[in-house]
Amino acid sequence: MTSIHGSAEPGSAFLAEIRGQPEALLRLLDHARVYEEAARAAVEREPRLVRLVGHGSSDNAASYGVYAFGIVSGWTALRDSISLSVYYGAKLDLAQSIVVALSQSGRTPDVVAYVERARERGALTIAVTNEPASELARAAEATLPLAAGVETSVAASKTYVNQLAALALLAGALAGRADEIGAGIRRVADLMAEALPRFEDAVSGVANAFAYVGRMYVIGRGIEFATAREIALKLTETCRVAAEPLTSTDLAHGPIAALDPLFPVWTIASRDETLPTVVEAARRARAAGAALVASGNAQSEVEGAAFRLPVPEAPIPILSPLLSVVPGQLFAGALAAAKGLDSDHPVGLTKVTMAQ
Amino acid sequence: MTSIHGSAEPGSAFLAEIRGQPEALLRLLDHARVYEEAARAAVEREPRLVRLVGHGSSDNAASYGVYAFGIVSGWTALRDSISLSVYYGAKLDLAQSIVVALSQSGRTPDVVAYVERARERGALTIAVTNEPASELARAAEATLPLAAGVETSVAASKTYVNQLAALALLAGALAGRADEIGAGIRRVADLMAEALPRFEDAVSGVANAFAYVGRMYVIGRGIEFATAREIALKLTETCRVAAEPLTSTDLAHGPIAALDPLFPVWTIASRDETLPTVVEAARRARAAGAALVASGNAQSEVEGAAFRLPVPEAPIPILSPLLSVVPGQLFAGALAAAKGLDSDHPVGLTKVTMAQ
Repeated sequence: MTSIHGSAEPGSAFLAEIRGQPEALLRLLDHARVYEEAARAAVEREPRLVRLVGHGSSDNAASYGVYAFGIVSGWTALRDSISLSVYYGAKLDLAQSIVVALSQSGRTPDVVAYVERARERGALTIAVTNEPASELARAAEATLPLAAGVETSVAASKTYVNQLAALALLAGALAGRADEIGAGIRRVADLMAEALPRFEDAVSGVANAFAYVGRMYVIGRGIEFATAREIALKLTETCRVAAEPLTSTDLAHGPIAALDPLFPVWTIASRDETLPTVVEAARRARAAGAALVASGNAQSEVEGAAFRLPVPEAPIPILSPLLSVVPGQLFAGALAAAKGLDSDHPVGLTKVTMAQ
Repeated sequence: MTSIHGSAEPGSAFLAEIRGQPEALLRLLDHARVYEEAARAAVEREPRLVRLVGHGSSDNAASYGVYAFGIVSGWTALRDSISLSVYYGAKLDLAQSIVVALSQSGRTPDVVAYVERARERGALTIAVTNEPASELARAAEATLPLAAGVETSVAASKTYVNQLAALALLAGALAGRADEIGAGIRRVADLMAEALPRFEDAVSGVANAFAYVGRMYVIGRGIEFATAREIALKLTETCRVAAEPLTSTDLAHGPIAALDPLFPVWTIASRDETLPTVVEAARRARAAGAALVASGNAQSEVEGAAFRLPVPEAPIPILSPLLSVVPGQLFAGALAAAKGLDSDHPVGLTKVTMAQ
């Protein structure tokens, strides 16, 4: 099978970029001092609030940022509404806000527009991007490089993992813990490199069983809700599965009613304070007849899973999502291949989304 | 067909409660002075931030609150993470925060726990509930009654619409516009009462065509994203359709790839600053082969819709979502009936969700 885009093998770029994630993490750490400088500038503003903006995978990383800033720095962070500022022109007080704008390309039009307005209104604006010469970087006061290397597959992988690492490193620097978080990320890169061949073997068996799945829920909570969102997005864009991310609580407030034996539920179970809620949500999904995939470093706590994808424990719990997402990325690639789709070039998508 | 729960007719409570929404709105307005008092107490705190918490339909209403407080009051509001405080014990500064906790029953366990902690940490806590004698009302410093009347159907309807009205009224009171917003809500109640018979006729034709639909996207943006979330939830809980809410931008960042001619997309098109983005998302969904349902007061702007559900224009744009949700509620009831399901008693759900 050859791709209409002329690449040697469909999905080969996506797979190569997932395999390149450990190296990409190490490259990010070369810029740790830049993160610490940005943190010093941020602390001087005595901020009340961190406003995270981004779309797609970048917005999923922002979900993680809410927990990284909350748990590591004790700061309130929110995924801010872009439409409130850019479309409705709401007159918000941004003088004590830090804006962290996430865009791998640095070209997402309404993220750039948001940053321009926020800067005019007195916010400290920080761009986190893989393209430090981009429009977004020019619009923001400070730029933190992702340093993930070139990413050609439309589906983001290493830029997402480096966004998580960037947010953890910035949150750590704000709390005077940059060295500890940096060392943790280095250890995560090693654990990921060791685990990758094992992950690749494990997902291929699961993917074949899912060739005809059309809809799925992906469940996570707290720091792993970002992982649920990102795995659901990978499955949706590369495999044409309508995969919806839900918190364990969301599931109980409605979607549990939609489950049946043809409806698989992917659960991300990591060892932290929210684990009992995820285990309970999985139990309810199983009782409703759904087939379960259990992933994460505490997957063994999930009862009755048809498929298991264990993940190594991160040295610091806040770094778990950097590892938890990897089996989902690889599964999406393997399922796309099983369906005869090219995960490098999903139907109807482009690498830089200009839609607003 | 008789319900296993013994009610006269499946779905009759849900339908009666939707029909009761105009009266429920008028009952809420009887309490307008209580809302103004709460607003005065809130303004005295010179708040930096409104933290909204709730699950299910209450969390959907919170999505609306972000825009009501932002546009009407110029205040930053966020849907706060309950797990960050209640599970992870994050040490956030809440001294200048207003908490608005939404729960129709006032018994949602982790919402009560969140309010208890936030109050200890210095936030002004306000409960918005249909049960002013509930645990949540006892935990909060102030209570704003929803006054929606008894709601017996598991799927929320009039409590949701009254939550929107409550948030609009509170946001209006904060901005010294309580009378204007109150008069607007009164006019919305009249418009809704007039439109209800027309809506009921319109949805029955669409519902029959959707009897075998298993998945769907519901698209809204800005103030209507709450509507997209609530319509998707009604379809999921009462009709067992995996309906996922998306902003117009979310659609372009991945889910567009999953669409095909068997995949209907419901678009909520209201006349406001975000309308062009919704019209463009609908165009892209149609180009990908999806069947379109166009609802809202600007549905005529959506090209190529297979089904149209027009909605009257609200007297103030911020009140549009109170009307936009109604065709979706009625559609969910009609589709459940077409599928032989009882929308009053969805499988696996209870009126008060105790899961955390």
